[in-house]
Amino acid sequence: MRNKDDYRVPGFLANGIHTGIKTDGGRDLSLIFSTRPATAAGVFTTNSFKAAPVLLDQERIRSGKARAVIANSGVANAATGPDGIADALTVSRAASAELGIDDEMVLVASTGVIGHRLPVQKIEAGIKGLVAGLREDGIADAEAGIMTTDRFPKIAHRRGTIGSKEVTLCGIAKGAGMIQPNMATMLAFVITDAAIERDALDQVFRRSIAGSFNAVSVDGCMSTNDTALILANGLAGNPLMKRASANLTRFRESLSELLSELARGLVRDGEGSTKVIEITVTEAKTKRDAQRIAYAVANSNLVKTAFFGEDPNWGRIVSAAGSLGVGLPTEKVCLFLEDIPIFANGKGIDGREAELFAIMKRPEIRVRLALGMGSRSWTVCTSDLTFDYVKINAHYHT
Amino acid sequence: MRNKDDYRVPGFLANGIHTGIKTDGGRDLSLIFSTRPATAAGVFTTNSFKAAPVLLDQERIRSGKARAVIANSGVANAATGPDGIADALTVSRAASAELGIDDEMVLVASTGVIGHRLPVQKIEAGIKGLVAGLREDGIADAEAGIMTTDRFPKIAHRRGTIGSKEVTLCGIAKGAGMIQPNMATMLAFVITDAAIERDALDQVFRRSIAGSFNAVSVDGCMSTNDTALILANGLAGNPLMKRASANLTRFRESLSELLSELARGLVRDGEGSTKVIEITVTEAKTKRDAQRIAYAVANSNLVKTAFFGEDPNWGRIVSAAGSLGVGLPTEKVCLFLEDIPIFANGKGIDGREAELFAIMKRPEIRVRLALGMGSRSWTVCTSDLTFDYVKINAHYHT
Repeated sequence: MRNKDDYRVPGFLANGIHTGIKTDGGRDLSLIFSTRPATAAGVFTTNSFKAAPVLLDQERIRSGKARAVIANSGVANAATGPDGIADALTVSRAASAELGIDDEMVLVASTGVIGHRLPVQKIEAGIKGLVAGLREDGIADAEAGIMTTDRFPKIAHRRGTIGSKEVTLCGIAKGAGMIQPNMATMLAFVITDAAIERDALDQVFRRSIAGSFNAVSVDGCMSTNDTALILANGLAGNPLMKRASANLTRFRESLSELLSELARGLVRDGEGSTKVIEITVTEAKTKRDAQRIAYAVANSNLVKTAFFGEDPNWGRIVSAAGSLGVGLPTEKVCLFLEDIPIFANGKGIDGREAELFAIMKRPEIRVRLALGMGSRSWTVCTSDLTFDYVKINAHYHT
Repeated sequence: MRNKDDYRVPGFLANGIHTGIKTDGGRDLSLIFSTRPATAAGVFTTNSFKAAPVLLDQERIRSGKARAVIANSGVANAATGPDGIADALTVSRAASAELGIDDEMVLVASTGVIGHRLPVQKIEAGIKGLVAGLREDGIADAEAGIMTTDRFPKIAHRRGTIGSKEVTLCGIAKGAGMIQPNMATMLAFVITDAAIERDALDQVFRRSIAGSFNAVSVDGCMSTNDTALILANGLAGNPLMKRASANLTRFRESLSELLSELARGLVRDGEGSTKVIEITVTEAKTKRDAQRIAYAVANSNLVKTAFFGEDPNWGRIVSAAGSLGVGLPTEKVCLFLEDIPIFANGKGIDGREAELFAIMKRPEIRVRLALGMGSRSWTVCTSDLTFDYVKINAHYHT
């Protein structure tokens, strides 16, 4: 575990406290604050049933500016109708008033039970202490405040150089899967002192999300509350990054790494999961084909239970890959478990069973499916399907 | 349980025997034989990795004629390459020789482990006895011979009148879900003495499959071996049914009922399932939207575990429905559990929790989601996701 100080990003303060939304005494309200206006971008769930905080953020993020993110766990403020929007605004206004900033500069997020009203009085009562406790090394507490059934915190940090200036990135996330009764999925907040134009930030954030959070799957379910936000306050003093610049490419590499680290944390911490399985589809004709096939394998309950059972059951993998209506050249398709070929020329390859069974016992396993159709590829990380997944999702009642 | 005689269809003989493919002594080889050439149609898996018997049948069914179906359980003859095709042909030739019919008139099917060669010697050794035992009341034994992990036989029977003549239909099926290690899904064989033109039979069979087998889901997985065949031998002597005739409509109703009964049997017998859940999406703009949304709900692991947990967790249902990118008018969407409204105007409806929890304890539960967008609808039957599903699929090794 990194020292708390290591998560600092110049010009950002954070805090997380307990206000009473969670009944177990855990932190349930978090605040991230930029000491100066920051450039901001966001990526949100595409679910039709968007939670109130998502609807509010989608409106506010259009300005491309933000100074604060306030987020609670325990209640998702989803499927709450106009009351939910009013509640989100109440929380936002309480935060902006205490911080002394324009209310439009506050972004909000919630995660927890669907269909319940936010306990705004508890939140309002906590705001003063939340703001008073803001500090440079508060990011770990902010992470704790957004966790629900997460078994461990997901925090990632990167430092790099852009135009001779040191630039710092830090991200926190909670996940993964639509967790126990009605808990809503994935929140991720990234802060950086990089100087970057709004359009460039938006583009680079979306691309990095596509290769990280959009390349993991726990149960194939998309929540009403999924929210990823990035704030860049420019304090690093690097030359302002614009679209299609070499500096932007370097920044994107760091950001992608950071987000991938967080995304893998989500899978590792997936509900009931015992393994992380990396499914790579190569030699696809189009990227879309590669993605669809990788997800079909990653989301197959038969594949996921086979990994839980530590059975190198290649039949389930090729059958899942073949089920989408993408006409595969079945004689050309090759399947590898780690580096061992297990299926080629339309049939299984015998003789290395002992090695295969040994690989299946590992906590992280790579599967590669080469389609023999083209040159595009895609990788999805997924978890196994276990008794605990069923237990978590069936046996905790609303 | 119906008496064995009740399953008779004039002009059809059947049998099912043990040849040693199954190690538990159960019947593993089945034969259905029409005493005269029959009109035939088939619907097959769209999986790219089609098993050898599927490839052979797809070729043979083009003639629109068949006289026999020979099917084994225990080994799927899938992912076996050219050897698998040769093995399927060997079985077909052994059967046609013993029956004294043209080999092209034989259709084949297999279900069981993927990637293993068919034990053709055992099958060949059994053919003589299989044919010798053919009888009018042998359909129940034929059903037993195609079962794998099925807990009960799926046989359905209908009698009706077409142009003053009595017409009989009988269907058998095995399923459901890609069953324990590498077991491959769904086989269904229907026999009838109806007189019907090939094109009419093909059309009516495809339509009836769409509303029955293609409207059930156990785990959203499509196998390499899915095969549905129908043979119509014309012995009823009814006026030959043609496309777009009133008689054909009546025949289709009987056939649809028969297939729906078999399909529901598959869900009820789904791996580890404790409940049958009927998901109906109404008021969709297009049938395709209704289907996609019904399947998204039916295949959501979070929805399926909630039913196993007997928790009326409507948040998971609306979230699954909203996750597809079909823009739903969230204020208009209404959700019903049986006849009780539980979600409307973008939020949950309180006050009838006791009734909802009581409904969730039933073995069969209906869910209706009205989208408020149009007039198209679709129904999918699914099962719950249970500890036993994980156990069956994780803990039996290849």
